Amino acid sequence: MSGQRPGPLSGFPELLPGQRMIEQQIIDGLRRTFELHGFAPIETRAVEPVEQLTGGGEVDKEIYAVRRLADVEDRDSEPGLGLHFDLTVPFARYVLENAGKLEFPFRRYQIQRVWRGERPQSGRFREFTQADIDIVAQGELAFHHDVEVARVMAEALAALPVGHLRLQVNNRKLLQGFLFGIGAPEPSVAMQAIDRLDKVPADVVGGLLRTHAGLSDKQADACLELADIRTADTSFVDRVRHLGIHDELLDEGLAELAVVVDGCRDLNSARITVEADLRIARGLDYYTGTVFETRMSGYDALGSICSGGRYDSLASDGRTTYPGVGISLGVSRLLVPLFADGSLAASRSVPSSVLVALPDEGMRAATALVAQALRSRGVATEVAASAEKFGKQIRYAQRRGIPYVWFPAAEAGSQHEVKDIRSGDQTAADPDTWLPPEIDLKPQIISTPNAVE
Amino acid sequence: MSGQRPGPLSGFPELLPGQRMIEQQIIDGLRRTFELHGFAPIETRAVEPVEQLTGGGEVDKEIYAVRRLADVEDRDSEPGLGLHFDLTVPFARYVLENAGKLEFPFRRYQIQRVWRGERPQSGRFREFTQADIDIVAQGELAFHHDVEVARVMAEALAALPVGHLRLQVNNRKLLQGFLFGIGAPEPSVAMQAIDRLDKVPADVVGGLLRTHAGLSDKQADACLELADIRTADTSFVDRVRHLGIHDELLDEGLAELAVVVDGCRDLNSARITVEADLRIARGLDYYTGTVFETRMSGYDALGSICSGGRYDSLASDGRTTYPGVGISLGVSRLLVPLFADGSLAASRSVPSSVLVALPDEGMRAATALVAQALRSRGVATEVAASAEKFGKQIRYAQRRGIPYVWFPAAEAGSQHEVKDIRSGDQTAADPDTWLPPEIDLKPQIISTPNAVE
Repeated sequence: MSGQRPGPLSGFPELLPGQRMIEQQIIDGLRRTFELHGFAPIETRAVEPVEQLTGGGEVDKEIYAVRRLADVEDRDSEPGLGLHFDLTVPFARYVLENAGKLEFPFRRYQIQRVWRGERPQSGRFREFTQADIDIVAQGELAFHHDVEVARVMAEALAALPVGHLRLQVNNRKLLQGFLFGIGAPEPSVAMQAIDRLDKVPADVVGGLLRTHAGLSDKQADACLELADIRTADTSFVDRVRHLGIHDELLDEGLAELAVVVDGCRDLNSARITVEADLRIARGLDYYTGTVFETRMSGYDALGSICSGGRYDSLASDGRTTYPGVGISLGVSRLLVPLFADGSLAASRSVPSSVLVALPDEGMRAATALVAQALRSRGVATEVAASAEKFGKQIRYAQRRGIPYVWFPAAEAGSQHEVKDIRSGDQTAADPDTWLPPEIDLKPQIISTPNAVE
Repeated sequence: MSGQRPGPLSGFPELLPGQRMIEQQIIDGLRRTFELHGFAPIETRAVEPVEQLTGGGEVDKEIYAVRRLADVEDRDSEPGLGLHFDLTVPFARYVLENAGKLEFPFRRYQIQRVWRGERPQSGRFREFTQADIDIVAQGELAFHHDVEVARVMAEALAALPVGHLRLQVNNRKLLQGFLFGIGAPEPSVAMQAIDRLDKVPADVVGGLLRTHAGLSDKQADACLELADIRTADTSFVDRVRHLGIHDELLDEGLAELAVVVDGCRDLNSARITVEADLRIARGLDYYTGTVFETRMSGYDALGSICSGGRYDSLASDGRTTYPGVGISLGVSRLLVPLFADGSLAASRSVPSSVLVALPDEGMRAATALVAQALRSRGVATEVAASAEKFGKQIRYAQRRGIPYVWFPAAEAGSQHEVKDIRSGDQTAADPDTWLPPEIDLKPQIISTPNAVE
């Protein structure tokens, strides 16, 4: 490539190497948690037939179409492909395609990029990474799996180097039952109005409930009272009962939600709260029971960074139905703003823990042996590119954040020395036994969450 | 998703969960090797402006164009984007774009998918994963970095669970100098003919050298003699000298190649041979010195699974030139055929090492505590989905390849037991201390390379 300096493409965030090392450590942590719980990894191809992505025109996501450049002019050349906009549609297809080779209930995680051709705006990207977990069954999926996905994701979220997170749980049956119970004429419209409570004030939502969903003042007020209930234990049940609405589906939803909240109670900590939040509706998604959203303290404008729920039919081949429950973490959506405001940074820009200094070019083979000895014990090591003055070589290490500079023995009988360039301490060391403190083996994540709620 | 069972898309391979676990272990191993040598990770966006991908029409790769579905009909809507077809073009752009924020020489690795709109044929994919390492400098890049990338990739290759690999090294200066020395009228055409030696017989290449490259019989024979030289030490130098051709560039190429081969000699093993192979030309690429290809024993038809070389100008902004040297491993190209012929398989299809059996639904909380205790020591564990007969639960574990089934204590005072379902051995065990043998913690890779050369 040559010519002028290229610029970034709006909506396609890229990370610097130090940031990418943090992202990798975080993804490794997610993988570890998911695998400890028996979730198997899959990746799906980036493309799906466009007609499957649009699902008969019901989808509200902006899709990127993909065509061979040679065929762009020729509209009839081949069936249209598009980049997937989430990991749920391709997962559903993967389950149907491989049903005969999978064991059910099938637990999978999938950490991959997705693409949306949206007008980029703050916090919205055209390309971003998601980390999804789902459990899918053939025919029936027991309710305890709803608790399981909530617990697994809560455990993964609690390990993130970010501020306090709230995993908010609700249940569509509870909402729907309540709306039936108050006699709402158009429950789904009412639900979409309630879903807007994190974006617009309650009185505006009240207005929508009256004008769009056809509710009376009293009905709308009851909805707003319901949506205002938020508890980290099962006390929400009494508060809902206190509103005096009776409906069988409402009872079912209350019972299910109580099981999830109670089943996660031991996970509540300074890092995460799992709570019933009755305003969570996931208005435009096809969930049929449990629904999840997640907020990060100090980043309200981001909206939910981790959402999901239960589908009674994730997929179906006409004969068999595959119900599922899952939750999807927006990795880029979470990390990119933290990189941008400086609240997440790496202690160095390279994996190297040690720079082996090069006294003169004739000693290159000797420095290579030192590096090899260190690497054999898991110490990431690079050798200086050229035999400049030691001061310059130390500054090279400093600029990269490499904590140690190794000075090889100049001749047989003399000693190797290693310098911690942060403290200036320099000591004799043996390349066959020396190890840095554990904390210096990998780049550290420097996390300074910018807010407490 | 609903409807009929979907089928695969030709050229877009997908893996089953067990295969994906192997791919991940292999990628983790590559990352570990690259990081031990100080290579920093980056990822680039999937798309680049089409005009940068085509580089003024010189590229021979089939590009996938990407457009918002809503804009497909409207050709003037926005500058055209395409999916990257390799990781070198985006890396060059990334270096130029971030030059002010990077430290040079900059070592990076990048493991990502790429896309090519080719007609799919055996071993060619439309979507596949590559693992690239490159070292790039500002202005000048010392030659010892050519040795470095060869050594790092050879070390990574030697750790792969595959048969014997040959990392073949040559030098374009050697070839060009030789062609100058024999007085070839069109050296680049001759080089492209030599490049075809792994696909067509030597006499056909001889014909091409005479008819296309305008060589005499004697000149063509000299080329074929040169191309026949292959040594795992520096004895190739004498064999070339013996051909009696003299040229300054040839001398330079011989000296450089000798340094690389000699610098990797200690890495030769039963897993890998690093050798000078004078037929390697990389005919259509823009390398200017060292060139690399890699063959896997028993899979000649795959061609090179790991290729690269030195570019004197990886990128340039008009004022500064960025020379680079790198090598790219075709992860999918290597693994997909091994999965297809069964020579690479996983010992289980899930990460779980233990299935906790469920005696009855009332014991779900107790089984969850056992699972939590095991996970806290890094033992991947799942709990049985339902309280079926133990025989059924054991078969569930067997179908997934989970090696251990845990039977929780039925009441206070009674003992937990764990069964190795491969041997049938069942013993008392404490969930707070029991650990499986190290080898059972993660799925094992079962590698049965199908050929020795």
